[in-house]
Amino acid sequence: MSVSVQVSPLDKIFPSGIFPSACPSRVLLDHITSKWGVLVLVSLTGRTLRWGELRRRVEGISEKMLAQTLKTFERDGLVSRVALPVIPPHVEYSLTPQGDELVTLLHPLLGWVAVNAEAILGPEAGSD
Amino acid sequence: MSVSVQVSPLDKIFPSGIFPSACPSRVLLDHITSKWGVLVLVSLTGRTLRWGELRRRVEGISEKMLAQTLKTFERDGLVSRVALPVIPPHVEYSLTPQGDELVTLLHPLLGWVAVNAEAILGPEAGSD
Repeated sequence: MSVSVQVSPLDKIFPSGIFPSACPSRVLLDHITSKWGVLVLVSLTGRTLRWGELRRRVEGISEKMLAQTLKTFERDGLVSRVALPVIPPHVEYSLTPQGDELVTLLHPLLGWVAVNAEAILGPEAGSD
Repeated sequence: MSVSVQVSPLDKIFPSGIFPSACPSRVLLDHITSKWGVLVLVSLTGRTLRWGELRRRVEGISEKMLAQTLKTFERDGLVSRVALPVIPPHVEYSLTPQGDELVTLLHPLLGWVAVNAEAILGPEAGSD
């Protein structure tokens, strides 16, 4: 599989080579690379999931952290939340078009991490 | 600019769609997406930097966090540290070949973030 994305070269965006602290990109990067951000976004690739399904896929995430992560992405317009007016409540989450665009860039990263983690950290890492 | 990387499709690596908690990839992902991980790695793209230069480029990082971030990446074999036997001490950091491979995947991500952050968060975000 080969991924091809149009990207702006970073040296055009930050010609001084300095990543300024007072910059919206710093805040957005923090949201995406938050403890559970990448896994939550990638889990939603190409599918709509309910709360419980999402929690099962991102193993180990607490209710509180899932709520917080989804809320942030909803506010950023990367995830959309639909609450169906039924009893019991039925809430669904999916990626917005912008979230879709972003996850195409997270897939190669997570794929690389998954393929290289054991060689980098040793097979014992991560096993509790 | 177009980036093309060979990646393994995630649904081959995680066929159940579940990201298991006891997994080396979880640990490595945490290292890379740590508070300063992405910016430190990207700053070292194609260049060797001294401690002070790195700190200037990753604006706002504390001495402690820079030390901790570099140590983790050194242990992971993503960053190499060379201490020249001179007085005063001269220590240089650069990416290893594996670190090089990884940053090619971080560039498109950071580029996307930089281009979209203001539209997503509003111009006020990140300004102190």
